[in-house]
Amino acid sequence: MSGFEFDRALELRPGKAPGEMIGDVDDRWMIGKGVNGGLLMCLAAAALRSQVDRDGAHPDPLALSAYFVLPTSPGPISLTTTVLRAGRTMSTGQVVLSQPGPDDHPQERMRALATFGDLGDRMAPHVRSAPAPVIPPPEECVSRQAAPDFLQHSSLVSRMDLRLDPVSAGWLHGKPSGLGVLSGWVRFSDGREPDPMALLWALDALPPVAFDLGLYGWVPTLEFSAHLRGRPAPGWLQVQLRTENVIGGLMEEDARIWDSGGRLVALSRQLCGFRLPR
Amino acid sequence: MSGFEFDRALELRPGKAPGEMIGDVDDRWMIGKGVNGGLLMCLAAAALRSQVDRDGAHPDPLALSAYFVLPTSPGPISLTTTVLRAGRTMSTGQVVLSQPGPDDHPQERMRALATFGDLGDRMAPHVRSAPAPVIPPPEECVSRQAAPDFLQHSSLVSRMDLRLDPVSAGWLHGKPSGLGVLSGWVRFSDGREPDPMALLWALDALPPVAFDLGLYGWVPTLEFSAHLRGRPAPGWLQVQLRTENVIGGLMEEDARIWDSGGRLVALSRQLCGFRLPR
Repeated sequence: MSGFEFDRALELRPGKAPGEMIGDVDDRWMIGKGVNGGLLMCLAAAALRSQVDRDGAHPDPLALSAYFVLPTSPGPISLTTTVLRAGRTMSTGQVVLSQPGPDDHPQERMRALATFGDLGDRMAPHVRSAPAPVIPPPEECVSRQAAPDFLQHSSLVSRMDLRLDPVSAGWLHGKPSGLGVLSGWVRFSDGREPDPMALLWALDALPPVAFDLGLYGWVPTLEFSAHLRGRPAPGWLQVQLRTENVIGGLMEEDARIWDSGGRLVALSRQLCGFRLPR
Repeated sequence: MSGFEFDRALELRPGKAPGEMIGDVDDRWMIGKGVNGGLLMCLAAAALRSQVDRDGAHPDPLALSAYFVLPTSPGPISLTTTVLRAGRTMSTGQVVLSQPGPDDHPQERMRALATFGDLGDRMAPHVRSAPAPVIPPPEECVSRQAAPDFLQHSSLVSRMDLRLDPVSAGWLHGKPSGLGVLSGWVRFSDGREPDPMALLWALDALPPVAFDLGLYGWVPTLEFSAHLRGRPAPGWLQVQLRTENVIGGLMEEDARIWDSGGRLVALSRQLCGFRLPR
């Protein structure tokens, strides 16, 4: 059993049904009243990996798309996996995450499709990749001690050491930049080093980019698609969130992650809701 | 029965199983040896719409994510739908597209998750959106008469009137720009006006952006996620494809579409394979 809380949170055991994995989510990963979507996507990936990576050939999620059907609460979860294709270089499958509903019957909370492979085989050839944006080093960035109460109340923020680029941190005192960009550094607060699963989590760990536009309301995720593109080096992850299209109650949030060596290692796009301030 | 070939291609009828829709794909929508993924995503959306839009409240796909398991050939198809949630403003469901396999049993070719709603309710408020890139008008762009043989042999290209920005058309005579950008205009060749379903198709209708990097090989799509953000005005659609990260045999292709009024109406990202030229 790992001493790191992220690894403990992803511990699953076989359930009774074929392809079923079960586990428990505790209240350490809350954002608002629900469990952080990034953690749920990691649980889905962990469940599917147990099915598609039996011979160690396809250990890494290359792509994962999750649709959030209902919020997930702390407590027992069931993950039902279906392998759609087991190929030579990749495997594809589905995961349904459910919890007991009001009548105690399983109620679906999230469904994901994912393709697994080996990121160790995906480092070369390198034709091109996005350079990391230039921001101040972590020690010159804004840490969560400066966060207002509504972020302090999310247990998720205690799981990480987050440092925001000062340019992206104006919203902390009511002065969002209006650029629609949020940049910073993130690592686990207990010192666990990043791996592909941590990237999947980190893509959805920062405060919403909506805050940089002065949209402070709840931004529920409809759909989240992640692409993992490399195994990260140890150390800080540099994350940048952006949004361009904020229309009719919906906005996309694009995330990119670079490792401590400046190498692009993950991308994501999510579609989420927003509300204008009254 | 519509006189337009896109509408005819999306005609489905109820199958025997609950939630099953069946149809036929003809050889008009081929790219290489497979049926165009954009058309398959539209078929999936059409099947799911028949289940989630019975009262006309959720006619439009807002988000759709498809995983391509095996190539689809011309011939009969079956689309098995599952409604995951029917909400007030949105509904979410799943579609499995299958064809008879070698042993005549159904063999899965593509699986998609999608959320439907009403794009008519999604035009305002408008906080921000990406402006359309400035490119020459369609009559000053490069049409497919200039395309080399390997594009002429795709039946898909006959379905559309495609005009490439001359800056993006260098690859047609072996001189790709190397920018990783492909811009142009597209409309159906039979005059059918665009609607949200046409946007879903147009996101995956252009030649791959890989061509602009001199990567002319087959670029199979692993995963495709589309966001539809508005109902398009009649006329040309302006499409831009971009890629930033071309590493280890995988690249993302991001597409954006603006309607004839310059309004952003659709976004997508796909993860696809590439091979370096020998």
